[in-house]
Amino acid sequence: MSELKFATRLNSFASGPHMYWPDLQGKPSVLQMIERAGTVNGLTHLDLNYPQHMTTDVKTMRQAIEAAGLAVNGMQMRWDAPEFKIGAFTHPDAKIRRQAIELTKQGIDAGREFGAKLMTLWMGQDGFDYCFQADYKKMWEDAVSAVREVAEYAPDVDISIEYKPNEPRAYSIFPNVTTCLLAVEEAGSPNLGITLDFAHVLFANEIPAYAAAMVARRSRLLGLDLNDGWGKRDDGLMVGSVNPRATLEFIWQMQRDGYQGAYYFDTFPDASGLDPVREAETNIATVKRFLKLSEKLNNNPELSAAIARQDAVTSQQIVNDIMLAR
Amino acid sequence: MSELKFATRLNSFASGPHMYWPDLQGKPSVLQMIERAGTVNGLTHLDLNYPQHMTTDVKTMRQAIEAAGLAVNGMQMRWDAPEFKIGAFTHPDAKIRRQAIELTKQGIDAGREFGAKLMTLWMGQDGFDYCFQADYKKMWEDAVSAVREVAEYAPDVDISIEYKPNEPRAYSIFPNVTTCLLAVEEAGSPNLGITLDFAHVLFANEIPAYAAAMVARRSRLLGLDLNDGWGKRDDGLMVGSVNPRATLEFIWQMQRDGYQGAYYFDTFPDASGLDPVREAETNIATVKRFLKLSEKLNNNPELSAAIARQDAVTSQQIVNDIMLAR
Amino acid sequence: MSELKFATRLNSFASGPHMYWPDLQGKPSVLQMIERAGTVNGLTHLDLNYPQHMTTDVKTMRQAIEAAGLAVNGMQMRWDAPEFKIGAFTHPDAKIRRQAIELTKQGIDAGREFGAKLMTLWMGQDGFDYCFQADYKKMWEDAVSAVREVAEYAPDVDISIEYKPNEPRAYSIFPNVTTCLLAVEEAGSPNLGITLDFAHVLFANEIPAYAAAMVARRSRLLGLDLNDGWGKRDDGLMVGSVNPRATLEFIWQMQRDGYQGAYYFDTFPDASGLDPVREAETNIATVKRFLKLSEKLNNNPELSAAIARQDAVTSQQIVNDIMLAR
Amino acid sequence: MSELKFATRLNSFASGPHMYWPDLQGKPSVLQMIERAGTVNGLTHLDLNYPQHMTTDVKTMRQAIEAAGLAVNGMQMRWDAPEFKIGAFTHPDAKIRRQAIELTKQGIDAGREFGAKLMTLWMGQDGFDYCFQADYKKMWEDAVSAVREVAEYAPDVDISIEYKPNEPRAYSIFPNVTTCLLAVEEAGSPNLGITLDFAHVLFANEIPAYAAAMVARRSRLLGLDLNDGWGKRDDGLMVGSVNPRATLEFIWQMQRDGYQGAYYFDTFPDASGLDPVREAETNIATVKRFLKLSEKLNNNPELSAAIARQDAVTSQQIVNDIMLAR
Repeated sequence: MSELKFATRLNSFASGPHMYWPDLQGKPSVLQMIERAGTVNGLTHLDLNYPQHMTTDVKTMRQAIEAAGLAVNGMQMRWDAPEFKIGAFTHPDAKIRRQAIELTKQGIDAGREFGAKLMTLWMGQDGFDYCFQADYKKMWEDAVSAVREVAEYAPDVDISIEYKPNEPRAYSIFPNVTTCLLAVEEAGSPNLGITLDFAHVLFANEIPAYAAAMVARRSRLLGLDLNDGWGKRDDGLMVGSVNPRATLEFIWQMQRDGYQGAYYFDTFPDASGLDPVREAETNIATVKRFLKLSEKLNNNPELSAAIARQDAVTSQQIVNDIMLAR
Repeated sequence: MSELKFATRLNSFASGPHMYWPDLQGKPSVLQMIERAGTVNGLTHLDLNYPQHMTTDVKTMRQAIEAAGLAVNGMQMRWDAPEFKIGAFTHPDAKIRRQAIELTKQGIDAGREFGAKLMTLWMGQDGFDYCFQADYKKMWEDAVSAVREVAEYAPDVDISIEYKPNEPRAYSIFPNVTTCLLAVEEAGSPNLGITLDFAHVLFANEIPAYAAAMVARRSRLLGLDLNDGWGKRDDGLMVGSVNPRATLEFIWQMQRDGYQGAYYFDTFPDASGLDPVREAETNIATVKRFLKLSEKLNNNPELSAAIARQDAVTSQQIVNDIMLAR
Repeated sequence: MSELKFATRLNSFASGPHMYWPDLQGKPSVLQMIERAGTVNGLTHLDLNYPQHMTTDVKTMRQAIEAAGLAVNGMQMRWDAPEFKIGAFTHPDAKIRRQAIELTKQGIDAGREFGAKLMTLWMGQDGFDYCFQADYKKMWEDAVSAVREVAEYAPDVDISIEYKPNEPRAYSIFPNVTTCLLAVEEAGSPNLGITLDFAHVLFANEIPAYAAAMVARRSRLLGLDLNDGWGKRDDGLMVGSVNPRATLEFIWQMQRDGYQGAYYFDTFPDASGLDPVREAETNIATVKRFLKLSEKLNNNPELSAAIARQDAVTSQQIVNDIMLAR
Repeated sequence: MSELKFATRLNSFASGPHMYWPDLQGKPSVLQMIERAGTVNGLTHLDLNYPQHMTTDVKTMRQAIEAAGLAVNGMQMRWDAPEFKIGAFTHPDAKIRRQAIELTKQGIDAGREFGAKLMTLWMGQDGFDYCFQADYKKMWEDAVSAVREVAEYAPDVDISIEYKPNEPRAYSIFPNVTTCLLAVEEAGSPNLGITLDFAHVLFANEIPAYAAAMVARRSRLLGLDLNDGWGKRDDGLMVGSVNPRATLEFIWQMQRDGYQGAYYFDTFPDASGLDPVREAETNIATVKRFLKLSEKLNNNPELSAAIARQDAVTSQQIVNDIMLAR
């Protein structure tokens, strides 16, 4: 497992600032968060939010990342400027929609400067809250054509759509896995794919391994946000803290489908007052544990046979014996 | 509105049997339920569950339906025999899966004898409950290829997929609108389409008008199960009893997309101890009321403009003035 | 652990009847289900639904239960006769409400004949579906005063309220733990207590160990329905199949609060086509496993200290090391 | 209706700042938001968040509020300083818990200076996210004893608990109405009561009128946060925009129970890019409309009789005729 890529949410390192910077006033800078990320044992990569994390010149950031012993895994667009409140790719004002698209292209360009060939699009602002608020067909077509335009802009970069049922909007235009697969099919660009966020998948009412299998059938799994939750909202809890069995099945499914990307942790240590460094280290340890368990599930003909006949009693027994301590 | 088709769930007429049959012991027969359906003022059609409702010969049933002043709108498959417990189109045993497909073809044939060119497939048994219970890719492919086979068997009949997030299975293979659109795209048969059940749509976390618009873009809306619910499960409540605004928007969207099918009520008067005859009449009255309100929404340039710019305050004011009494 | 009581849902043994009775036509009788329950390795007790399971005379049933090597743990009321559709203890018709109360007293009497000093009240029919359907204050008071009357009828018997958010009604009068604690406080009878059903607790949006702790503070935990689910409805899945961590915490909490009752499995093997005998045996094995793990959590000062300071990283590491295989 | 009090969320007036302050850089000040609130036709009151809104001296604020033609309805505690991340009244560190309690007393004192005899406690930080994170019994007791201490500090001020199922914590210590009633009963102070937030009530799986009736039975309804939502999270939508029927029933219930407090709008115009002034005016107009409809429900013996016998068909017809336009 020496070549595994482990990444985490850079903003997590603003959590519990007094633990690392006893004298800091206010919030840490991006460079400070990068430095702190470098103290996580086993972390190899970071994702950068665009444009929020571009607070200094690229060269300074690159040096800081390198000094922290890390590399950039990918870029993540964040259209949280006030003008995008009711939409980025689907903003009803064509001028603002154009800004959102051009900003995304700049984000891709910025990623290239960090050696990152992955851009994740979580289109949180693209959705609706009320009945009689949106023209659903136009909104869908605006979303798909913007995704296509961005993908065609950078054929050498993987463009990945991440879905989430709601928040900040009451309904997202891309709320679940099949919505994304339909959008990818309509956009038609070969460099498109999908990012699965475990907690989002749960509150989209999907078993994570099902979502992974569906992506593998029709598209490519380009990114992975590991975390956990109670299936009602985006809890952002530590890996395996609620659904260890579903986490194990998810990892097993992805491994069999040949996932090569990073294990990125989209967790919110801040919400629970946790030390983000120890939290990330715990997540890395948990994933390594599940990867080992996942290997034990392979080459298990009884398990394969039980699944082939939908025999949940037998698979429960086998997985319990593999997963749980005695 | 003289040509509107109103249909309802035949099994509803087993509710409150003492109100109609004071001396009845046990449950009413299918013929008795048809007779009682005939007493609903304004009802024009029935759907028949296959094979459950085929308790007598076709000729007798046809006469009973005609005598009740009704016609058959469509057939609805129900694979609730014990052998289909863990799957009909996706049963892991190829022999049982074959039975499910052949039974469906027989249902289509039976429908033709009633003059019904619509078969609705709510594949309630096709899904999974546990992690490590199902081979998701195979299950999906089995579902799609069975739908395709059935559709190709009867090119002259509309075959409609109805989705539902869960129940009886913890997860359905077709849980939401985009799953069905993806399945229809993969199956590829032109006589396929989609049935929207309002309460299912709500607990699939979709605004109903959004689901209708998505169907209109990529497929055909072939059926409509009107009812209402609290968005957490399949409550089967009376039309407009919880979400009158979403119901109005849904009807408005369908009308603009040219829906020509029946207004079918998939409600559960039994669960609330209601008289099914008065309940159906109330549903018919409510739909007529909403159809009138829907017409008032048309040719309203202020409303169209508000929606075009996502201005929910203005649309709320306009719709309140049209929908609510003063 | 030799004295642990393991009970299960008797109706589960109607699942997969061909596996046990290859020649059986129709559904098995209560006596047949008792016989099959007797084949479960490790099962010690049964609960009886009243009046549904009273299909033969008490003496015959007692002999059958004894012959199966089992004992009766408790009685469970089921007011599923048609007259109770819109309420048992809260039926708007005083005559029917009286019937429900008297039937419950008869159920308690029947229990005594089986040596069972526990009556569980899951008041599934007592609730509402619609706005403008119920007089909430009267319904609450009817519920509480009936519970009190029943409890005062049999001071020697433990009367336990089991809650569930919904189903069959859209809203239950007793949907969550604090509702029951308030009802128990208002009823005021010392022989009242609460039964926790793990899957109900989850879809009531409660962490099970929190519910157990709340019961221990203000009332008594009289019964326990172990199972699992996805937190959206009453899935009735095998113990630990979704939420092993929450199951372990729940068992640990109950053990520390001195729970002495049976481990009863309220699961639905039928819904997943499972062999109920092997399913029950798997549940027993899982509980024994969790009871052992629970012991390892005791006398762990690091864990206690982590919980005392809400340090979820440390407790996650400790519990992972205890619960998960390496 | 000349004496109705209408209040709204002061922070809403930071929404769409360019609409009111074309040249403003950054966020508006509290005084600026007060000024803008004064432009809402029909608004009479404001609530102040403590300590966040105390950015200037009390005298200046009082003058600004008076100049805007408004008065202070009540104070609302916000423990969102970093030290309260994992708890205010239940913080595991006794020193920080003490700070939270003292801060609350200061908030009550500050309220008195504004003539406000109402303090609302939404204890958002008091809860838990993970299994094995919290000592549930101690947390509950810490919550109740702090509420009691605060209530006893100011017997002349109404202290109101507002519940919410989750967010920011995954589980709140006070998630639903009966939890609060139990807490009020344990705290025992006569000046305690409960605030109902319509959207919170919906995602706590309660019909709002049921929650209001339960509060009226055992405690006092001290505050009201009107808004609407889809029942899955705290959407903060305009009044009546999703659930007009439940809103009408809620208002009817409160009116009959003698509610005298303000109609406060806890909505998030910012999330949907709405003009907060027009949004508030729309909410006021909607409430006035529902108050008129509510009067028509009174003295309606058919409606009372239908509810008394749980006849949802009849009540649906009556309410449709009163509520919906023809």
